[in-house]
Amino acid sequence: MRANRRIVLQHRPTDKLVADDFRLETTEVADPGPGEILGRTILLSLDPANRAWMQGRTYRSQLEEGDLMAGFSMMEVVAENGTGVPVGSVVSGDGGWQEYALLPAKAVEVLRPTAPLTHHMGVLGITGLTAYFGLFHVGALKEGDTVVVSAAAGATGSVVGQLAKLRGNRVVGIAGGADKCRALVEQLGYDAAVDHRSPTLVADLRAACPQGIDVYFDNVGGPVLEAALGRMNMHGRIVCCGVVSQYDTNRPASGPQGVPGFLVTKRLRMEGFIVMDFHEHWEQATREMSGWLADGRLTPLEDVLDGLESAPEGLVGLLAGANIGKRMVRVGPDPR
Amino acid sequence: MRANRRIVLQHRPTDKLVADDFRLETTEVADPGPGEILGRTILLSLDPANRAWMQGRTYRSQLEEGDLMAGFSMMEVVAENGTGVPVGSVVSGDGGWQEYALLPAKAVEVLRPTAPLTHHMGVLGITGLTAYFGLFHVGALKEGDTVVVSAAAGATGSVVGQLAKLRGNRVVGIAGGADKCRALVEQLGYDAAVDHRSPTLVADLRAACPQGIDVYFDNVGGPVLEAALGRMNMHGRIVCCGVVSQYDTNRPASGPQGVPGFLVTKRLRMEGFIVMDFHEHWEQATREMSGWLADGRLTPLEDVLDGLESAPEGLVGLLAGANIGKRMVRVGPDPR
Repeated sequence: MRANRRIVLQHRPTDKLVADDFRLETTEVADPGPGEILGRTILLSLDPANRAWMQGRTYRSQLEEGDLMAGFSMMEVVAENGTGVPVGSVVSGDGGWQEYALLPAKAVEVLRPTAPLTHHMGVLGITGLTAYFGLFHVGALKEGDTVVVSAAAGATGSVVGQLAKLRGNRVVGIAGGADKCRALVEQLGYDAAVDHRSPTLVADLRAACPQGIDVYFDNVGGPVLEAALGRMNMHGRIVCCGVVSQYDTNRPASGPQGVPGFLVTKRLRMEGFIVMDFHEHWEQATREMSGWLADGRLTPLEDVLDGLESAPEGLVGLLAGANIGKRMVRVGPDPR
Repeated sequence: MRANRRIVLQHRPTDKLVADDFRLETTEVADPGPGEILGRTILLSLDPANRAWMQGRTYRSQLEEGDLMAGFSMMEVVAENGTGVPVGSVVSGDGGWQEYALLPAKAVEVLRPTAPLTHHMGVLGITGLTAYFGLFHVGALKEGDTVVVSAAAGATGSVVGQLAKLRGNRVVGIAGGADKCRALVEQLGYDAAVDHRSPTLVADLRAACPQGIDVYFDNVGGPVLEAALGRMNMHGRIVCCGVVSQYDTNRPASGPQGVPGFLVTKRLRMEGFIVMDFHEHWEQATREMSGWLADGRLTPLEDVLDGLESAPEGLVGLLAGANIGKRMVRVGPDPR
């Protein structure tokens, strides 16, 4: 038995999440039973979806008070029981917010890292794949398309824009605040950036997209989606990837005006997806992304916090848009 | 020169359309110039979209006060000028609300009627094709899908449900009032019908769709769309065909809650279309529809009003849901 520091959800938030909704506790973790691995957490991913899991059933069951806080992590296998997964290997899965996770081997994926693990957590991981499949498969990006992406300085958004630039498209990012907008243009090479907090958002977006929008990659929903809808071109595609504006509240906003009116008159397609839907294509996509990363054509934006106890504030900040790039927590050392 | 009775829009409605927004006037119509035909109106189509044209730019330019009321019609060619369209033939196009229409030959389609003209106006015309392409192409109907259609007793809806039944799918119609709901089940063979005016719409829809909804064919938008969104199955498709709930008002409703949230978590696709997008496939579709009609597998629901002067009240009633089936106005005799 080993001591295990872990963070549980002590209150389901009724409105904005606060760090006090979590509690750090120390328990003991058992040795792996048959078919199980014991993983030591290296990196923990912080994602807007973490908040959505507290709200209701999504693509996973709802988190209840007293539950270990769920989260995607990378772990070093420190013990196993008849699984065939070697001790010392690095695996990923829903390890949760804890130092040690006991998991069925079937529930984890064995990684063969080719880059720093932080890259595998971001641009080469779920985040990057989400951008890839959302833009190319769901968004059906074509030559000459103008692409707009919201939460553009976020983990997924920052990859979406870069992938579209890499294909030669005009890219406009929507982000919160001047610093992020500047980073989009200067660091990532976006053609323009629009601050979603601007009182003239609609006019700003129009000015940034003189030819209208062909693909809108939506991470936020709400008023930003509504603004984009009004600027979509005929036969445009809206990729529904997330609804950040709606996660950190229990008072759901009304839906965007223009749905379904604009969908009919402009023959738009709006489509939701999650990256798991494209699992069979992950390997090929990861290979392509790795190549672009190695070439320097893809810049990983990472925001790494230190120590398990930084996770609660880290998630609260993420939901308020404090991060630039993929936010994660380093819980323990990388064994390699 | 011939006397021509025509109806113009004398006021753009600020809220609900009333018959007094129109004015009947008598003018004269000139002989056709080069490349023009003179058509005598036989049937005039009344469509919810007529109201949308008064509201703003759609897929056609906005109607202004004093304009001839626009509308799709079938006409007998009574004169022509070097067009190659024989006098006596039947053509269709945007002839407007008038007894005689002078139109460029290029703007009309020559019909080869194989059934009563009312059928060509409804189930074998734009209406039927809209149902066909919306359900089969946009909705990508599959075996075993549960189909829900709104405005189900309307021109398009009544064909959508029949087409899905014909393919062996479970079909639930949403319509206004007990009479229409009964007609859907008894006359058209729907599996169930739900009254959108019911205070328990959400629960009624749940009861009628125990397996959830795979394809929702939306003609109305608004709260009915919102109710359907909550009941959609994973990877469901929402066919956006019209927004009847929003046409007869200048106060647009807020959008449906659940957009884009449900689109992400349930990976839904919402897609708008208009029938013109499928023009290249019309002939093949019409052939198929004609076969089903001849076999008695497709029942045309028609609601034919008499005389040009009945058009204003006819459209007002259509927007209030007074019709069952395709509403049209007989303006003059069928020459055949």
